[in-house]
Amino acid sequence: MKLKEWLNSEVPNIASELIDVHNNYFSIEKSIGFEGQETIYKILQNFRSALFPCLCDKYSSDETKINISIGNNLRKSSIDLSELIEKVLANESSLNEADSKRKAEEIVISLIKKFPEIRRMLQTDIQAAYNGDPATTSTEEILYSYPSIQAISIHRIAHELYNLNVPIIPRIMNEYAHRLTGIDIHPGASIGEYFFIDHGTGVVIGETCTIGKNVKIYQGVTLGAKSFPLDEHGNPIKGIKRHPNIEDNVVIYAGATILGGDTTIGKNSVIGGNIWLTQSVPENSRVYNSQPLPNIK
Amino acid sequence: MKLKEWLNSEVPNIASELIDVHNNYFSIEKSIGFEGQETIYKILQNFRSALFPCLCDKYSSDETKINISIGNNLRKSSIDLSELIEKVLANESSLNEADSKRKAEEIVISLIKKFPEIRRMLQTDIQAAYNGDPATTSTEEILYSYPSIQAISIHRIAHELYNLNVPIIPRIMNEYAHRLTGIDIHPGASIGEYFFIDHGTGVVIGETCTIGKNVKIYQGVTLGAKSFPLDEHGNPIKGIKRHPNIEDNVVIYAGATILGGDTTIGKNSVIGGNIWLTQSVPENSRVYNSQPLPNIK
Amino acid sequence: MKLKEWLNSEVPNIASELIDVHNNYFSIEKSIGFEGQETIYKILQNFRSALFPCLCDKYSSDETKINISIGNNLRKSSIDLSELIEKVLANESSLNEADSKRKAEEIVISLIKKFPEIRRMLQTDIQAAYNGDPATTSTEEILYSYPSIQAISIHRIAHELYNLNVPIIPRIMNEYAHRLTGIDIHPGASIGEYFFIDHGTGVVIGETCTIGKNVKIYQGVTLGAKSFPLDEHGNPIKGIKRHPNIEDNVVIYAGATILGGDTTIGKNSVIGGNIWLTQSVPENSRVYNSQPLPNIK
Repeated sequence: MKLKEWLNSEVPNIASELIDVHNNYFSIEKSIGFEGQETIYKILQNFRSALFPCLCDKYSSDETKINISIGNNLRKSSIDLSELIEKVLANESSLNEADSKRKAEEIVISLIKKFPEIRRMLQTDIQAAYNGDPATTSTEEILYSYPSIQAISIHRIAHELYNLNVPIIPRIMNEYAHRLTGIDIHPGASIGEYFFIDHGTGVVIGETCTIGKNVKIYQGVTLGAKSFPLDEHGNPIKGIKRHPNIEDNVVIYAGATILGGDTTIGKNSVIGGNIWLTQSVPENSRVYNSQPLPNIK
Repeated sequence: MKLKEWLNSEVPNIASELIDVHNNYFSIEKSIGFEGQETIYKILQNFRSALFPCLCDKYSSDETKINISIGNNLRKSSIDLSELIEKVLANESSLNEADSKRKAEEIVISLIKKFPEIRRMLQTDIQAAYNGDPATTSTEEILYSYPSIQAISIHRIAHELYNLNVPIIPRIMNEYAHRLTGIDIHPGASIGEYFFIDHGTGVVIGETCTIGKNVKIYQGVTLGAKSFPLDEHGNPIKGIKRHPNIEDNVVIYAGATILGGDTTIGKNSVIGGNIWLTQSVPENSRVYNSQPLPNIK
Repeated sequence: MKLKEWLNSEVPNIASELIDVHNNYFSIEKSIGFEGQETIYKILQNFRSALFPCLCDKYSSDETKINISIGNNLRKSSIDLSELIEKVLANESSLNEADSKRKAEEIVISLIKKFPEIRRMLQTDIQAAYNGDPATTSTEEILYSYPSIQAISIHRIAHELYNLNVPIIPRIMNEYAHRLTGIDIHPGASIGEYFFIDHGTGVVIGETCTIGKNVKIYQGVTLGAKSFPLDEHGNPIKGIKRHPNIEDNVVIYAGATILGGDTTIGKNSVIGGNIWLTQSVPENSRVYNSQPLPNIK
């Protein structure tokens, strides 16, 4: 059979060429791989079950047994996460093997200790969704069907790891949230309590964004960067404040684009849909595009 | 080993604290859980296979066997759905166990009876996609690669359950469609035949929207609410008409935002891309933003 | 039990009615089915592992074994793809069974031969992401967490199959990318090297688009069609140039909508966010919306 014969004779050469190209740019041994990526997704699913326990078929109604089940879940996920952090630390820093392992374990302990606090914070986000959407009838509906809750749950975990200087993994976590929800939050973004994103698809929140308390954002809103400075090699300079500050009680409607590290939206402001804004506005502002005049055919 | 020891000693306390926080807000016993959510996704996949049967490897080419296969699929999914509806009815209403069960079974029977009608309706949507997109070359391509068809298939099922006053589950269904397609339709929205959403990512269609026949919508279109009234406790008042009416034969281009329960887009109108509109326009309107003038560097 | 009895007596009739409706429009025997769709997704996952090999648990660190593993992956996927192409060719063209098989095998061989070239092209896209985003700290982070790379990896494969006149399958491939990333690229679009889409959700790139080298696009950008001509039966005329040309070194910011087959964005131009543009702009243009004036409450 023609195809099979061709594959048998040619595929080894093509595989060699693919390995050679890849090896020019990436270390095959050191990469966490798509397998590591899948492990991170699995860890996040387990963390979600631990943060929002429910009486599933596999649990009995006995609270002791639920505790044991959550505990097993957290223990397994913590060890998996520690091993991945150890790997990326060893790859990206000057730490030796023992130090990478020790630091990875400390990071995971710091994270898990924060879980009850993260859970309380997430309850303010669930409450904000209830307050902010007339279409919902219960907080249980919000827990199971609001992408905002899924995105912010993952963000509040990834943000802790970002603050603990873990490379790569926080971004993979938030990109998983992005895939599930269409909401793209950089793990570096700092977000206050009672945060709600309605619908959410297309929302982008940049790395150096700061968002106050009780902020509501609609689908398609970008809190992004203006053009950024390059170094002498033409590479973008990392680590500069590039994204806006959103103060308390601000509402931003669908499709607004707000850019720049020196752009501040003053508290209690309302930004209308489809606005393009690259400068600050004071407290209590109302910013709307004018209404177009229809032509009748 | 440090991490493992810490996990063994501390995780039971953290698990207890997580259960306590959660129990303040949600009933662990009554929740359908993320497991129930996954069951709903599975039911929708099975309904899709029943609505669009094809000769897969597991079927023989014998139509009797296809019938048996669809039948088994529908029976299993119907019983699973009935059990979930029974659970949410018992949780959210004053029905006793026997009444919840009886009502859940009646609801599922009503839904399944409508399947042939839903299937015929979906064929008008497939035809609308064929008529509305010069890039497609066959209706089979549409069936397998148009997110619009997947979203509207799920919506037409969820809308029946919404009309039968099923709590929570219709929203979980449409949020599944949202995850798969980026198209966020509230199950309450009423949508006529020959409906087509091209590309679809970022489309939002609110709960009290009414959409006529032969309407075409592009990616990023919002049919949403203006600010909504609050009750004496500061909670949004539920059940008010908040979203626009789109009449027959309207086309709405990418990124337009149309808001408000008293906003009506008259029949045969065309709304241009990136329009922000919070008032009605009459029949046969053409509404476009003006073209910007480029500066040459 | 009421529901079970009803299902047993009524479901066979409903299944028959569903089969009848479906048979009016689709051939059950000939369709690749949702099973074929899932096979295509699996093939793309395997191709991704072959293009970006990494030292996963299942590989030893021995390069010979990695080569064997990639080879097995490519061989299996190639045969699966060939069988699907054979099926769609037999359904959609006048080829007999033997010719469909022969042509399908030739197509797969052409595709696999191009893999090293595709891999090198993708490295320019990874480099463009690194150059274009100050938030990233390594190319490994890009590989595992940038939806742009996933979308363009699938597009560069699907575009080869589109150019080889494979029906249906290239669209299913790009729709899979769309589902994973929110980026909707038609397999017909022609895209130069060093291409980067930041964030990506809501991007739409139409079938007859041509994009030069070193182009950067942000989330929510549409490169779409204006209204299109209909034939004497009211069907859209297929195969006309409908989508814009984007020349080298152009940057297009979030939410811009650019439409029309005779619209060209001249090289080195910058198009601002939320712009609605249906006409050409010359080289070196800067096109921005004016800033709105805020009202203070």
